[in-house]
Amino acid sequence: MMGDDVENGNLGPYQDRPRTFPNMRSKPYTPLIFRILMGMNVRVLVILLLLGFGYVFYVGASTSPIIVFVFSVCIISFLLSIYLAKWVLSKDEGPPEMAQISEAIRDGAEGFFRTQYGTISKMALLLALVILSIYLFRNTTPQQESSGLGRATSAYITVAAFLLGALCSGVTGYVGMWVSVRANVRVSSAARRSAREALQIAVRAGGFSALVVVGMAVIGIAILYATFYVWLGVDSPGSMKVTDLPLLLVGYGFGASFVALFAQLGGGIYTKAADVGADLVGKVEQGIPEDDPRNPAVIADLVGDNVGDCAARGADLFESIAAEIISAMILGGTMAQRCKIKDPSGFILFPLVVHSFDLVVSSIGILSIRSTRDSSVKAPIEDPMAILQKGYSVTIVLSVLTFSGSTWWLLYTEQAPSAWLNFALCGLVGIITAYVFVWITKYYTDYKHEPVRTLALSSSTGHGTNIIAGVSLGLESTALPVLVISISIISAFWLGHTSGLVDETGNPTGGLFGTAVATMGMLSTAAYILTMDMFGPIADNAGGIVEMSQQPESVREITDILDAVGNTTKATTKGFAIGSAALASFLLFSAYMDEVASFAHESFKQVDIAIPEVFIGGLLGSMLIFLFSAWACSAVGRTAQEVVKEVRRQFIERPGIMDYKEKPEYGRCVAIVASASLREMIKPGALAIVSPIVVGFLFRVLGHYTGRPLLGAKVVAALLMFATVSGILMALFLNTAGGAWDNAKKFIETGALGGKGSDSHKAAVTGDTVGDPFKDTAGPSLHVLIKMLATITLVMAPVFL
Amino acid sequence: MMGDDVENGNLGPYQDRPRTFPNMRSKPYTPLIFRILMGMNVRVLVILLLLGFGYVFYVGASTSPIIVFVFSVCIISFLLSIYLAKWVLSKDEGPPEMAQISEAIRDGAEGFFRTQYGTISKMALLLALVILSIYLFRNTTPQQESSGLGRATSAYITVAAFLLGALCSGVTGYVGMWVSVRANVRVSSAARRSAREALQIAVRAGGFSALVVVGMAVIGIAILYATFYVWLGVDSPGSMKVTDLPLLLVGYGFGASFVALFAQLGGGIYTKAADVGADLVGKVEQGIPEDDPRNPAVIADLVGDNVGDCAARGADLFESIAAEIISAMILGGTMAQRCKIKDPSGFILFPLVVHSFDLVVSSIGILSIRSTRDSSVKAPIEDPMAILQKGYSVTIVLSVLTFSGSTWWLLYTEQAPSAWLNFALCGLVGIITAYVFVWITKYYTDYKHEPVRTLALSSSTGHGTNIIAGVSLGLESTALPVLVISISIISAFWLGHTSGLVDETGNPTGGLFGTAVATMGMLSTAAYILTMDMFGPIADNAGGIVEMSQQPESVREITDILDAVGNTTKATTKGFAIGSAALASFLLFSAYMDEVASFAHESFKQVDIAIPEVFIGGLLGSMLIFLFSAWACSAVGRTAQEVVKEVRRQFIERPGIMDYKEKPEYGRCVAIVASASLREMIKPGALAIVSPIVVGFLFRVLGHYTGRPLLGAKVVAALLMFATVSGILMALFLNTAGGAWDNAKKFIETGALGGKGSDSHKAAVTGDTVGDPFKDTAGPSLHVLIKMLATITLVMAPVFL
Repeated sequence: MMGDDVENGNLGPYQDRPRTFPNMRSKPYTPLIFRILMGMNVRVLVILLLLGFGYVFYVGASTSPIIVFVFSVCIISFLLSIYLAKWVLSKDEGPPEMAQISEAIRDGAEGFFRTQYGTISKMALLLALVILSIYLFRNTTPQQESSGLGRATSAYITVAAFLLGALCSGVTGYVGMWVSVRANVRVSSAARRSAREALQIAVRAGGFSALVVVGMAVIGIAILYATFYVWLGVDSPGSMKVTDLPLLLVGYGFGASFVALFAQLGGGIYTKAADVGADLVGKVEQGIPEDDPRNPAVIADLVGDNVGDCAARGADLFESIAAEIISAMILGGTMAQRCKIKDPSGFILFPLVVHSFDLVVSSIGILSIRSTRDSSVKAPIEDPMAILQKGYSVTIVLSVLTFSGSTWWLLYTEQAPSAWLNFALCGLVGIITAYVFVWITKYYTDYKHEPVRTLALSSSTGHGTNIIAGVSLGLESTALPVLVISISIISAFWLGHTSGLVDETGNPTGGLFGTAVATMGMLSTAAYILTMDMFGPIADNAGGIVEMSQQPESVREITDILDAVGNTTKATTKGFAIGSAALASFLLFSAYMDEVASFAHESFKQVDIAIPEVFIGGLLGSMLIFLFSAWACSAVGRTAQEVVKEVRRQFIERPGIMDYKEKPEYGRCVAIVASASLREMIKPGALAIVSPIVVGFLFRVLGHYTGRPLLGAKVVAALLMFATVSGILMALFLNTAGGAWDNAKKFIETGALGGKGSDSHKAAVTGDTVGDPFKDTAGPSLHVLIKMLATITLVMAPVFL
Repeated sequence: MMGDDVENGNLGPYQDRPRTFPNMRSKPYTPLIFRILMGMNVRVLVILLLLGFGYVFYVGASTSPIIVFVFSVCIISFLLSIYLAKWVLSKDEGPPEMAQISEAIRDGAEGFFRTQYGTISKMALLLALVILSIYLFRNTTPQQESSGLGRATSAYITVAAFLLGALCSGVTGYVGMWVSVRANVRVSSAARRSAREALQIAVRAGGFSALVVVGMAVIGIAILYATFYVWLGVDSPGSMKVTDLPLLLVGYGFGASFVALFAQLGGGIYTKAADVGADLVGKVEQGIPEDDPRNPAVIADLVGDNVGDCAARGADLFESIAAEIISAMILGGTMAQRCKIKDPSGFILFPLVVHSFDLVVSSIGILSIRSTRDSSVKAPIEDPMAILQKGYSVTIVLSVLTFSGSTWWLLYTEQAPSAWLNFALCGLVGIITAYVFVWITKYYTDYKHEPVRTLALSSSTGHGTNIIAGVSLGLESTALPVLVISISIISAFWLGHTSGLVDETGNPTGGLFGTAVATMGMLSTAAYILTMDMFGPIADNAGGIVEMSQQPESVREITDILDAVGNTTKATTKGFAIGSAALASFLLFSAYMDEVASFAHESFKQVDIAIPEVFIGGLLGSMLIFLFSAWACSAVGRTAQEVVKEVRRQFIERPGIMDYKEKPEYGRCVAIVASASLREMIKPGALAIVSPIVVGFLFRVLGHYTGRPLLGAKVVAALLMFATVSGILMALFLNTAGGAWDNAKKFIETGALGGKGSDSHKAAVTGDTVGDPFKDTAGPSLHVLIKMLATITLVMAPVFL
């Protein structure tokens, strides 16, 4: 196992021995693809790269100048991200004890990543085979065959897109983790000098992976699009139309969401099982602080931050952006075709341009956070949240401008001269929605506001009332976001509907595309949001390293402040992620209905829940969410219990640990958590993938025998819609309750209601423990699940028909 | 306040003083209607009653012989119920200390009931005015006017039905509480003699209210039906058709569910706030047992069992049966009309006959539980669960026979000679579904099985893991019931669909009616189920009285066994209640669509969730469930905190309480809980009633301005369906998690995992505390809410159109 290297427990800064940690390192692990790249001659590499870029630009240029623009922006962002990584790596790793703790974390994280992604890639290959066989045996129309999109072609295209999506997702996950396990120690080290520098390193490390994640999503889709365009001879006579092209990209989204689901499940179980296990024995039973080197589960906990928060969140956001771009492209294409717009490429490629500008404005935002000029003077600590907010304000102002510019550039059409203005307003609706979402999340999870204070107060009457209050708070917190989503869907739909775009018969058709544009508006600063999100676990880890290497109080203070800010940004990003997941699923649902209609050669416009089977599909969809959440939470609970037993065993068998006289065996906890989370991620993941396919197939068979040919597709549609609605609510509930419990505990730790060590604090710690799997395992896994369901139904549609 | 009488705390069996409790009683409270009845001369009363019965039979005979049959069965059951009540009241009340505790409970319960139902009746009157004004200003068709069902007539009919439903519901609630506060002390007293006798008293007391509840529901609907039939001259030329008559009864269902919702909310908050508050300080902080006379909240806790479990559950089941009968009558009428069946009254009146037989077979089941012949010999304690199960088996076997008989009697038609057999099989599907539901609930909540044992084990690693495991268990437990409901809806639908009943164009139409028959099958032993359910709180209260009056260990043993059995029966009844709520809502939903279609004079067959507004309606519906649950739980949490503070205050200010040297002030806790629960029931209740009306109205306006006339009705339909699905899942989650936590605690109390007082036990008590508002406040309120939403949308349909 990957934990063997630290198995001997040779780690832990003990006062009475030199602060070195011999034989902590295993052989450094580098994925095969990196090893091949590094093994090559630099000149060969450069030539190969140039050739690659040349091909990309050639294909892009043959497609559309917009694609060339997208390629250029992505490549510039990659160059910028390399600069950011180099800048971060150029910082010092601090004293040897810091570096060695960091190395233990790195080994644990990379070891887990290797095993986890090994498992995921095997499953992805298996699924690819399943998709291939399904597509090779499905029915096609003569029309499809003649347009060059026969059975075999579409099978290979779908599988290739799926595998590319999965691969890109894996790379983004690796990149996120790669930088975080290197940046953490550098942030710790910088915290010894200045808060501002530490903040800057964490932001730039986060910025690096954010740019890679968004850039990969955009360039991957752009390359696929351009390649298919050239290969299939799109828009030449007798071939397929450009407006149908985006449907071929769905496999990419499915690959991304497939990998993201398992990455989030495995990482989420890992991080929270280690955290809960460490807290239950360390904080509650033994009364030692968090990240104390005497806790045998502390290294596992720190590893968890990297594999759970960094790697998984990278994959999650990659998937969000990919799904949203593809669904918006499909809708843009459909609408352009219905309205007979002469050059539809603007409508189709609009999402790619929006995210290219996202890369530009977010980069400016990231770079706007810099050290004070006179870094030699030790300035008083500024509020890091204010600094991040300032960067966000810069980004968002620029984003409003570039977004409006993009609508004017791409969505202007003679048929409806003012349509672009309506769509610009849709984008504004999205941006405002994102803002309001962030505000609501803050209101319910920040201890400056009423709800968390009430929750903290309820801790003073015991564990039970704390849990009841937290559950109520979480359930209640679903109301406002739902109202906001409802209002924004309706207003964006109506802005689109009244844009002046009409189909042949004069019916307005821009409504759904308006919703799509609002979703893009919401995600138009995704790279900056992801930067702030990545900042959290890096700061958290840095704090852990500072604590473990027993730095002076002043250094801890700095990392504590950064950590607290990280908690807030993490919580708000989740609200943001759900909002965009809700909108994206609604779009993918429309795309699914179009897809079914085109497969089935009959109109498929209605999903009538008054039909018993369709109603049952909905019931099953909602149930899927409950069962999935149950399995995700219980996986954490079970694994945490294993950790608790192991930590208790070590405290009993090695009584010297508490007096720093004996060393804990960190490695055993790492090994236990790693193997358990790999085992536990399979069941919920498989449930999510298998259920829609099985339900769709069963009802297809039932429909076949009862003379209702589209029954399977309709039941799956209801399953998807009900699962989306329940999933949004459940995720909001889990995330907010978890965040509120966490901060209620933090509020008490500031000295309120008796402060640390009081009975109120114990009750609050229980709440925090319960909230951990809610907010960091089940909640974020649900975001991914919602979108995965939407993409799987699209890709697997042939099974239901 | 109603608690003033016990305000001075003159209650509590202290070793060093005579066991009497002076000035505990307030003036006995009897509702106005009872006082008038009791003030009358007996002969006058008998004559009035005979006149009433004469009228009823006359009207019934003018309608259909089936109605006469129903009336006769109901009246016989009422006579039987009077016999049961007399039998229970003939038992002795035990020694004075028992009687006095019982009187304190009775005063508290009746005081709360009076205030609570005072508030509810004011709200009901207000709502009646609203309904009246809506109906007076709605549009009617010339056809409706000509058939005697003009604007004013239908307004008065709806309001009269609403008020009658509300009144009947209030009476059933009062009856349930009336008998339970009298039976509890008699069970305690009998427990001193024999377990079997105690069991019999509790069963017969439960049976009394069960017969009254079911009988009231049946006779109320039958009287309304017959009266409208005669009054409106149904089926005479130019008048309305008998198949349209059931739609006029909807107001009755709405009145019943309106009262049930507030009864369940107020009662549920009362009982659990008192319970949680008492446990948190008593059990957890002071380490005294449950129902210990030293706990100042103990009387409030015992009062809660009566107002929360007995009164509220009576209203809840009354509402379930009423809603289910009415929806099945509507569907029967619609189907009979479509199939042009010559005499449709069999199809319409079928549900009334099923429940008449329910009264018969359940009475036999109840009477089959009797004392052993030789009661003088002290026999060893038998397993009370086995005795109850035996009675249930008798009931269910008879019920299968009578059900099949009823289908043959009423559903035989020459058009489809074998249809009755298909419908008998539908009934069997329902009966089997009920059985499987009970089994699943047992599996997840009984500590003989895996899930609760795992939950108990998770308590050994702390409060946090216990809560995580319980939440996971609850979420997971939704899966099997959903699968069972899905299978039973589909199979009943197909049995009905293939029954041979076809409409004019030859399309099979019996599907929905098949589902309705399955629902009736499920509820065909409702009176016996309700008996078992009522048994629980009576036994619980008896145990409390035994504990408080410090009876010998052997007596406590008997009541403890009865209490444990009561917990199991209560949990299984809830599974049963959700299953029937799910099916009934699905039926009411169909009725709603028919109603809208007839109002709007256009076909309304589809609720298409691909329309953004309809999707948003669904989102809002699911959100409503989350918000309602949040408010119900937080109401308990808040009130419990008040109780905790009060109890702590008393323990601090009167340190002698713990040594039995000072008396606790029971009255203050009673007063606090009563006023808080009345205050707290308003917010969630108002939310449930106002939301569908507001949403429907807003989207009606939006639809009006955007040229989509049925938009409001469609959005409300989606709201209803999504709320039903989310409500079923949420209720299953809350009930099962609560039941499992309760029994995990009980399992540890049997000595497992360290037994009472261990850390595992403390964690398990936390879980039980959290589960209390889940399973006894929010969960059962959701059952009622689901059906209330279905009836409110039916009654308020004119607002959305």
